[in-house]
Amino acid sequence: MSDNAIDVDPGTVYLVGSGPGDPDLLTVKATRLLEAADVVLHDKLPGPEIIDMLPEDRREDVGKRAGGERTPQSEINERLVELAREGNAVVRLKGGDSFVFGRGGEEAEYLAAHDVPFEVVPAVTSAIAAPAVAGIPVTHRDHASSVSFVTGHEDPTKEESAVDWDALAATGGTIVVLMGVGRLPDYTEALLEAGMAPETPVALVERGTWPGQQVATGTLETIVDARDEAGISPPAITVIGDVAGTRESIVDFLQTDYGTVEDEA
Amino acid sequence: MSDNAIDVDPGTVYLVGSGPGDPDLLTVKATRLLEAADVVLHDKLPGPEIIDMLPEDRREDVGKRAGGERTPQSEINERLVELAREGNAVVRLKGGDSFVFGRGGEEAEYLAAHDVPFEVVPAVTSAIAAPAVAGIPVTHRDHASSVSFVTGHEDPTKEESAVDWDALAATGGTIVVLMGVGRLPDYTEALLEAGMAPETPVALVERGTWPGQQVATGTLETIVDARDEAGISPPAITVIGDVAGTRESIVDFLQTDYGTVEDEA
Repeated sequence: MSDNAIDVDPGTVYLVGSGPGDPDLLTVKATRLLEAADVVLHDKLPGPEIIDMLPEDRREDVGKRAGGERTPQSEINERLVELAREGNAVVRLKGGDSFVFGRGGEEAEYLAAHDVPFEVVPAVTSAIAAPAVAGIPVTHRDHASSVSFVTGHEDPTKEESAVDWDALAATGGTIVVLMGVGRLPDYTEALLEAGMAPETPVALVERGTWPGQQVATGTLETIVDARDEAGISPPAITVIGDVAGTRESIVDFLQTDYGTVEDEA
Repeated sequence: MSDNAIDVDPGTVYLVGSGPGDPDLLTVKATRLLEAADVVLHDKLPGPEIIDMLPEDRREDVGKRAGGERTPQSEINERLVELAREGNAVVRLKGGDSFVFGRGGEEAEYLAAHDVPFEVVPAVTSAIAAPAVAGIPVTHRDHASSVSFVTGHEDPTKEESAVDWDALAATGGTIVVLMGVGRLPDYTEALLEAGMAPETPVALVERGTWPGQQVATGTLETIVDARDEAGISPPAITVIGDVAGTRESIVDFLQTDYGTVEDEA
């Protein structure tokens, strides 16, 4: 056995985050678990480079069902229990961190309710890493004493929207939106209506740390146009707040492994 | 050269996060950079296990000055520039992630202003990982559609406090406080005054993923007593919100490498 070996327990599920996409940003522990697991359940979100690392005979894509629609979470939960009860050491691999908008909490609850032991293996979250490699710190002593993470999936014009954009604007801190390319016009509008300054810097980072990483920058008023000009498409992270302006002052000296990063202002 | 080798560039600074403390939660890239760097500048926050991995002849502790007081950030900035200009490949190693309350943004700005190339290497942030390994997902579809991170260093009773606890309470999402053991009475009081329910679950995770990890749980009303009974001391992460209650329902099946985790309710 190499010194990379790790002991895995049969009948146990490892809830493992894959990080933002660059295989070198996997944790050491995640790498070892992927090597040692009997089976890895994954979808497309870990990104092409990490998925290509997984041996084909020990991986199971639970992203889509035969018909092409998304696999319901309940089926994934049941499959995890089934595989564990057969005595497998199972890795449930999620993009980013399983416990940050990754449904890891639900999976943990289901496993516990079915007497299946599990371990949680934290990861680098794309919500912090994608901005970071683009030169944007989500907090900064001079600009932001808090940072809030939300998903952009939801319709902010819905009466019953779970996300309170007024309150987020009132924090005065950085706002990071995951999966928020499509609804960008809606929530930038909601934040302007909540009183945020139109000139507040905004950045979009598409496929952060993936081979095709792309960045667009602007303000609350201009970012929708910048998105369209740069052709930013999902998956992407939106950063709203003064920290998004940091990039401009440091990008000339920022080294990156992730290819060209183009700005649209 | 082993397949673990990485090319580092002389005269370049790598702003690297060490993750929460368990060396296995370093990223693959961080591990390689620590092996390849000419010099590693660090303080105590990466934790004893990671610091012990660093070869003594290539590390420099910039946590304290000779007199025992904390090294000013300006001195660390100057030292980074100096070492890079001497032609070294320099790793600046921070606990957690450099860009989450880690002053990485300031260091990046200083380096850019002094024409020093740098790279940002994201890490697992303790703010997410410490709760995760204790069985607490910072987001959950049923409980929290946002999560906000703040530091607890500041006095929330100050008129000019930069943290708006009223707004954070109004988000309805999870609130995670870093470095917030000492001021726990102040900000739990501020959140109660902001209208949060006294029975809101709260958890404290001390030294998450370190050998001496410890957990205490309670509510906004009881957590100060729970802290004192459990003897929780810095560094610790505070999680406020319904997600903190998840732990109770799953902890019996939660496997952990991090020793006993005791609850105080």
